[in-house]
Formats: sequence, structure tokens, C-alpha cells
Amino acid sequence: MTVRVNGLACKNPMLVQANDFLFRGLNMPGNTSNPVGSKVTLVNVAMLPGLNTLGIAMARIDYAPWGLNPPHLHPRATEIFTLIEGSVLVGFVTSNPENRLISKILQKGDVFVFPKGLVHFQQNLGHGHAMAISGLSSQNPGIVTVANAVFKSNPDISSEVLTKAFQVDKHIIDQLQSKF
Amino acid sequence: MTVRVNGLACKNPMLVQANDFLFRGLNMPGNTSNPVGSKVTLVNVAMLPGLNTLGIAMARIDYAPWGLNPPHLHPRATEIFTLIEGSVLVGFVTSNPENRLISKILQKGDVFVFPKGLVHFQQNLGHGHAMAISGLSSQNPGIVTVANAVFKSNPDISSEVLTKAFQVDKHIIDQLQSKF
Amino acid sequence: MTVRVNGLACKNPMLVQANDFLFRGLNMPGNTSNPVGSKVTLVNVAMLPGLNTLGIAMARIDYAPWGLNPPHLHPRATEIFTLIEGSVLVGFVTSNPENRLISKILQKGDVFVFPKGLVHFQQNLGHGHAMAISGLSSQNPGIVTVANAVFKSNPDISSEVLTKAFQVDKHIIDQLQSKF
Amino acid sequence: MTVRVNGLACKNPMLVQANDFLFRGLNMPGNTSNPVGSKVTLVNVAMLPGLNTLGIAMARIDYAPWGLNPPHLHPRATEIFTLIEGSVLVGFVTSNPENRLISKILQKGDVFVFPKGLVHFQQNLGHGHAMAISGLSSQNPGIVTVANAVFKSNPDISSEVLTKAFQVDKHIIDQLQSKF
Amino acid sequence: MTVRVNGLACKNPMLVQANDFLFRGLNMPGNTSNPVGSKVTLVNVAMLPGLNTLGIAMARIDYAPWGLNPPHLHPRATEIFTLIEGSVLVGFVTSNPENRLISKILQKGDVFVFPKGLVHFQQNLGHGHAMAISGLSSQNPGIVTVANAVFKSNPDISSEVLTKAFQVDKHIIDQLQSKF
Amino acid sequence: MTVRVNGLACKNPMLVQANDFLFRGLNMPGNTSNPVGSKVTLVNVAMLPGLNTLGIAMARIDYAPWGLNPPHLHPRATEIFTLIEGSVLVGFVTSNPENRLISKILQKGDVFVFPKGLVHFQQNLGHGHAMAISGLSSQNPGIVTVANAVFKSNPDISSEVLTKAFQVDKHIIDQLQSKF
Repeated sequence: MTVRVNGLACKNPMLVQANDFLFRGLNMPGNTSNPVGSKVTLVNVAMLPGLNTLGIAMARIDYAPWGLNPPHLHPRATEIFTLIEGSVLVGFVTSNPENRLISKILQKGDVFVFPKGLVHFQQNLGHGHAMAISGLSSQNPGIVTVANAVFKSNPDISSEVLTKAFQVDKHIIDQLQSKF
Repeated sequence: MTVRVNGLACKNPMLVQANDFLFRGLNMPGNTSNPVGSKVTLVNVAMLPGLNTLGIAMARIDYAPWGLNPPHLHPRATEIFTLIEGSVLVGFVTSNPENRLISKILQKGDVFVFPKGLVHFQQNLGHGHAMAISGLSSQNPGIVTVANAVFKSNPDISSEVLTKAFQVDKHIIDQLQSKF
Repeated sequence: MTVRVNGLACKNPMLVQANDFLFRGLNMPGNTSNPVGSKVTLVNVAMLPGLNTLGIAMARIDYAPWGLNPPHLHPRATEIFTLIEGSVLVGFVTSNPENRLISKILQKGDVFVFPKGLVHFQQNLGHGHAMAISGLSSQNPGIVTVANAVFKSNPDISSEVLTKAFQVDKHIIDQLQSKF
Repeated sequence: MTVRVNGLACKNPMLVQANDFLFRGLNMPGNTSNPVGSKVTLVNVAMLPGLNTLGIAMARIDYAPWGLNPPHLHPRATEIFTLIEGSVLVGFVTSNPENRLISKILQKGDVFVFPKGLVHFQQNLGHGHAMAISGLSSQNPGIVTVANAVFKSNPDISSEVLTKAFQVDKHIIDQLQSKF
Repeated sequence: MTVRVNGLACKNPMLVQANDFLFRGLNMPGNTSNPVGSKVTLVNVAMLPGLNTLGIAMARIDYAPWGLNPPHLHPRATEIFTLIEGSVLVGFVTSNPENRLISKILQKGDVFVFPKGLVHFQQNLGHGHAMAISGLSSQNPGIVTVANAVFKSNPDISSEVLTKAFQVDKHIIDQLQSKF
Repeated sequence: MTVRVNGLACKNPMLVQANDFLFRGLNMPGNTSNPVGSKVTLVNVAMLPGLNTLGIAMARIDYAPWGLNPPHLHPRATEIFTLIEGSVLVGFVTSNPENRLISKILQKGDVFVFPKGLVHFQQNLGHGHAMAISGLSSQNPGIVTVANAVFKSNPDISSEVLTKAFQVDKHIIDQLQSKF
């Protein structure tokens, strides 16, 4: 049995090795052959044990042409994002009651912030691949993709809840919930 | 100009009065005459200045018969919820990749936890009104209602982003975005 | 042997169940047949494991007619309190050197704040029962009742310390320390 | 008007001087000519502005022969205490329901811990002066002396509350509340 | 006069714009024409106001051939570092008494962690330029370059202190302190 | 195998004893018979288990005549320092780019602050012994002595790195790295 303490226990400091602080392969493009055309490669404490208790993680995001990192949020982290290649539209939405969409088209070298717990997305605006690197303010930031959490959970949220929440007919919810 | 410090500045401790620590009226049922049939009355630092820097807030939630507090999240708080009247279905969804729906039917006197930043909802399962009281672990927890943040933001998230994110046709997104 | 980490270790997230986030019975009035005529039912991480690491707890407080929740404090939490039934006098005292009593008579629906670590109390001002619900900003807030900590500890604080601290004769301390 | 941010605002870092990080005179014995025969000299952010945001403070405690630092607590800090001169009895009381008195006689050079928010005291056990130095885990730890908060507040807590809380007659509370 | 609160005050949330969350130009190589042959471009709350209170920052580090980001530390942040181009030797040193050098040669795509407050460095091992992106766990992480803090401060630390600290003759300290 | 959680696990609160909160012997002068003529005696959670999770530690620093506590930093703590005996020069250096030396000559009874993660030192300015007591804002503050971390690590940082970092010839680095 593994002891779990807000995720993971620490190793004896006398026994740590350089490899405990190393993760390899973030130069490898993520596989974007999926319906949304994007892939997040997250380096958190599960992949890089040396992050434990230190409050930070990193991610690489790849985008096929017109690929989308769909609306999602990090329940325990703010994200600072820099575009390495391509041109992407980014946005986040503020909380109730304003629900302002704060949005920008980013070029290579632009840095943008997605505050903790707010819904955000990025979309590749170009014919080529795009790629970004992010820092996240937790060793275990978590990712909640809105479409998955709301329409593809296990088990499903009842269509009764969802028709009322989104004020649409059940056949629309059925389509949103259909698993491809 | 008001100085803002993670929300609000503190008052001189010599000048605080009992009224700075008081909010009145949480016994008044919220108005549930709206499409979802529920109303959240949030007592945060904006309504109760004495909460500043103290990391807690409170809410009352009212439900009309079959009323729904639709899928939403608090970007800066965990919520502990107790049902005072009625019978409600509650649930939250864990983060990727499992997206487990953790769900329960609550009766009067049951207490449930919605962890920080996770999507959750409550639905009244009865013919009568239901009512709950919650504590939230921030003086400014924020509320992000998924339907508002994703389909009713100002301005709208483009339908191009949303059709891809939810893998449905534009006419479905149009319906989800239509403002009543 | 149980591993203890600021209280409790976490469960494997794959194995958590809805019951880990549920506590039942907060609708049951606490037994107020005791000398002070009040009862606190605290729902902390020991009763509700899903609270672990999440920084919040809840309590129900019952008051017999004229019952008192005697002067006490929470060493690790601020309390936000709402009166559900009855009419109660509440107060807290600020720290040295002012020791201001910040006090208010609350009616049903009033919300009040007791800042972290300050001595506070509530007294039922009516002939009927009173009841309140509180949120506390820690999963393990702790309760230090002044009378217990100072006059009923195990073993006793010496009467020499207490006569000097409270500037009264030993026979008075003896009465304060007498266990009923 | 001074801006207050959890106490105090920060100075422009370009303008800070060595004096902002300096407090003089902790070698001066505090005046112990008072009923309890002890004096706490607290160096917090109000006396030493360079402490702002840094989460630490210091205190010197002087004890006349048999002098007592009466039961008190720090609402926002743990205290680490070392005895420089003399011999003192120290103790703290754990929270409900155990209310264990954790106590020890300290000699010169002993170090003891008083956990955040718990009631604690120190009494000089000797014919000479005693002196201690403490570190506290907040730049604004606060001091709540139990006798002051409970029996000498401004205004008084009603004797009705106190007779019930301490289960003694009103004439005893009158004596405890009498201001010398 | 600007109000400073652990750095900076917040803007009215109603007035924030997308530009408050944007910094441009991290694609521009830093100027490495300096004695160490490296340049850190730090994007902290001073350059990107939207980072305020959010606990994260980002940096780009450029290295000329054989260029060195000399031994330094971040007083308020852990750094997660990924190499985008080139091959670099990285290392950090643990605290007393072990002072272990934890070191690794990184290739493109490798991710490494430099824990909060520990001395670390990176050296380009190749004939070409190298470039890295880092996330840092504070909106105001700070950089303390050891050579600057110890041998190039304003005013100088006395050579008496430094000869004793480093156990070398004054002429060696003179050379270390000489400003080029 | 010991479970490690940011250092150490907690003991069952029912089993803690007064000795868990006690460390003896801080009145004993540290042995200053070493090249720098000073000795730090640190009381952290490894010596005093009751400090666990409480965010504070204490140290005694002894100085032989002209003894030096050489430039060092605490990666996880601010230090508040008071001089008990003697006269010492103290200083800390601010971060890049100013690298201001903030310095003061302290007499008995002076209190000074060394902010978290900044390089600082103290030097005895007198013919007699000097002694100080410090509080540190972590139960495990850590000590990074610059000379040890940079010139005496295990294994050594390469002289190539150090000659470039300090802009001096290799023979100077050789002297700095020579172990006595």
C-alpha cells in the first residue's frame, strides 16, 4: 500500500538522485490525431517525483492545423502559457455574473495567463502545427475538460439535469453525450 | 479610487464595528422563478467585509420543485454543503482522464463535499421546496456556471471553437448559445 | 499503525466512493441536557474523510432555552455562522490590549463571523430552542473551550498559576476547578 | 488615510533602508511591576516594518520572582520559546475533548513549543528574575490573554454568560471581573 | 504614490483587459554578449500585471555557445525548466551539511526541477545556441546571482568578511570583487 | 521504512508527550573552533518533533572574537535575529539587479530581519564572544552556506563553470575549492 498525502509521500532526501528531478521527451510532439486536433503532455508530480511539495508543473500543448485545446480548467492551478510555434486564439471567461470572454490572438513569443479555476481554451488559427509550453502553479494541477466532465462522465449526468442546465431539448443533450 | 488587494483592503482595526461582521437576511428564500428553478445567495467578502483575509464564505441555495443548481464550480474554494429541507441529487465529476461522476441522493441533514475547482450540481428531487446551506473555503470563492461560461459569455466564444469542442453541428451550438 | 500527516493520509483517488464525501445526520438536534444547555456537532475530517486537505469543515449548534455555547475558540479556523432558528446573543473579543467585545443580537437568517483564534460565544435569548449552522476554514479546526482548557484540564493547572492569572483567592479557583 | 492589507502595506523596495529591518532595545528588561509579575515585549510588524509579509515575529518575556505569564494564546502563530535565565514551569492545554495539560519545568537553555491557538502559560519558579526569547510564526501573531478576553473585555461579557460558562455563582464572576 | 502589497495592488476586475494578461516578445533571443554568455528574460508580475496574486511566472533563458547561466537561486520560487534547443549541463546543490551536487546533462525536451532557494546553474555544452523555457512558482520569484550578491554588491561586503568566509587571501577576494 | 511528508509524519495526538515539544541544551555555547569562528545550533523539526507542520524553528549562533557566520541563506525561511551578547556587523543583499547590501552594526538587544532566500552574514566586531538567538519561519528552514554550495559541493561544480561565473582564472577557483 502506498501512502498518499495530498498525492504522494516524499523520498528520503539522502536517497534522491538526479533522475528524480528529470523527465525526458517533452520535445516529442503529442499525437493530435483526435477529434479536437490537439494534445496536452502534462509533466506533473506523477511523472516527475522531484516536484513533490514544490507547487509547480509544466505542460506542452500541440495543435494540428485548426486544432483546438477545448474549453477546460485547472482546479488547483493558474497557467502561464507561451506560444513557441504558430498563431493561436486564446481566451478565458470570468466568473458569474459578468462571464466576460477575455481573448487574444497570440503569435510566437506571446505569453498569456489563465487564472486558477477559470474556463479557457486555445485554437490554432493556422495551416501549420502550433506548439506551446506552459507553467502551472501546482505539482498536481488537474485538468477538467468541460465537454468530458459535463457530457462524457462515468456514469453520465442524467439528461434531466443537463436539459435544464443548458435549456435545450433532450435530443440535443443526447448528441452532446454520444460517445464517438 | 479604491485600493484592491486580492479583492479588498482592510479597515483600521480600531474602527471596526459589529456590523462589519454581520450580514442579514439569509433566512429569506432566494427567488427561484428562473429557468433552472434555483437561486444561490452568496455571502462573500463583498457583502460581509469582516470576512476579508479570513478564507471563508457562506451560501444559501433554494430550489423550486425539481429545481436545479446547474453544473458549476468555484475556482477558489471547496464547498461543504448540508441539506436543510427536501431531498436532492448531488454530484461532482473528477478530473481527466477518469471523469468519474461521484453522486448521491441527499436527505435532510446530509452533508456533502464538492472539492475545489470541480464541476458539481444539485437537483431537487421532490414536489416541495428544498434548501441548503454551504460553507466555502475562500472569502471570495467565485462561481463559474458552465452553461454561462461556455455558451453565454460576453462576447460569445466562437461557434467554431464550440462545435469542435463538443463535436456537434453548429445548429446545436446555436441553440445552446441562444439567449432567452 | 496509521500514518498521520497533519491529521490523516489520503485515500487512493481511484478508490474513493461517494460515501467518502458524505456525512449523515446533521438534522438531528444535539443533546443539550448539560450544564450549559448547548451542543456542538462538528463535521470535520475525522467524520468526513473527503474533507482531507481541503480546508473546510461544518458544524451544527443546538441551544436549549437560554442555552449557552460558552466562550471558546478554534485554533486553526475562522467560523462563519448563520442562525437557522431562534434569537441569540453572539460576541467575540479582540486581542490585547483593546479586548473589545464585538457583539450583536442575531435573529433567524443573520450571518456573523468569528475570526480565527479569537474567544467567542453564543447565548440563546429565547424560551424556545435555537439552532445554527457554521462553516469553519480548516478540515480540522479544533475547539478550545476556555473553561475546560483553563479550569478543567487533565491534570489541573496549579491553583498558584490560576490565582495569579485571575487575581482572585484560591477558594474561587477551587470552585472554578470543581468538576461536577 | 493609511491603506491596510492584512495589517500594513509594503514600502517601495528601492526606498527601504537598513533601519526598516531594525528594532532596538530588546536587551531592556520589561517592567514586571504589575499584578502578574511578568512583561512581554513583542517585536511585530508594527515595530519592525521589514517583517511585513514575512511570517515571523519575536518576543522577550521577563518574569519577576514567581512572576507569571498568564494563560494566553496567539490566534495566528505558533511560538518557539527558549529560556535564557531562570527556571520556569511551562504548559499548554490541548483542545476538546481531552484538554490535556502538556507541561514541563524548563531550565536555562531549554526550548519548548506552544502550538498555534492553544492556551499556554509560563511561571517563574525561582527567587531571581527569569527571561526568555520566543519566535512566533506570523508578523502579526496577536495575544489573547484569557483573563482579559473573558473577564476584562470592553464592554464586559454579561455575568449571565459567564456564570453559566464557568458554572459558578455571580459573586465569583463579579470578583473575576473586578478591575483593579 | 503607488500602493504596494507584497509587490503590487490589484486592478478593478471590471476594468481588466486582455492586455493585462499578455506579454509580447518571448520569442526574441536575449542578448548573450556578456561575460557569462547567457541572458534570462523574466516575465513576472512587473511585466505582466495579470499574474498578480496568482503565484506563477515564466522565463526564457538564452545561451551563447558554452554560455553559462551562473550559480544563482530564486528566493521565493521553485523552477521547472525545459530545454528547447541545444545541450546543457544543469545542476543544483542541496543544503548543509551534505551539499550534494545533483547534476545532469540535458538534451532538447528534457525537463528538470530546481527546488526553491537552492543554488543552481546551467551551462551550454555545445557550439550552437541553446534556449530554455522555465515556469517559476511565484509571480515575483526574484533572482540572486551568487557572484553578484557576494562579490559585486552595492556597497561591497568587506574583504574581511569574504576572506574569512572563503578562506582565501585578500588578493583573491580583490579579483573576485573587481568590476569589469 | 519511514514515511516522509515534506520531511516527517505526525505522531498520534493521543500519544504525544511533553518531551515531544522539548529540546534541551541551547544554553551550551556552540564550538567555534573552526576556520570561520562561529557555530549555528539549529533546533528544527528533526531535533524537536513537536514543531512538525507548525512553520517555525529556532537557532543559537555563537561567535568567537572576530568570528563570522559566513554568507548563507535559508531556502524556506525568513530569520528574525536578536543579539544577546557582543557587537556584530550584519548584512543581507537584495536580489538582482540592485544587489544592495543592507547592513548595520548591532549591539546587544538589537533585532534584525533576514528575508527569505536572501544571502546574509554576521561578523563579531569585538574581542569577546558574541551570541544571538533567531526565529525562522519554517520547521525545516535549511541552510545553504554559499562557500560550501558553490566551492565545496560533492562532487565539485566544474572549474569551467566557476571560472566563468566568477570571471577569474582557474588557479583562483582551485584555491576556493581546496578543502582544508
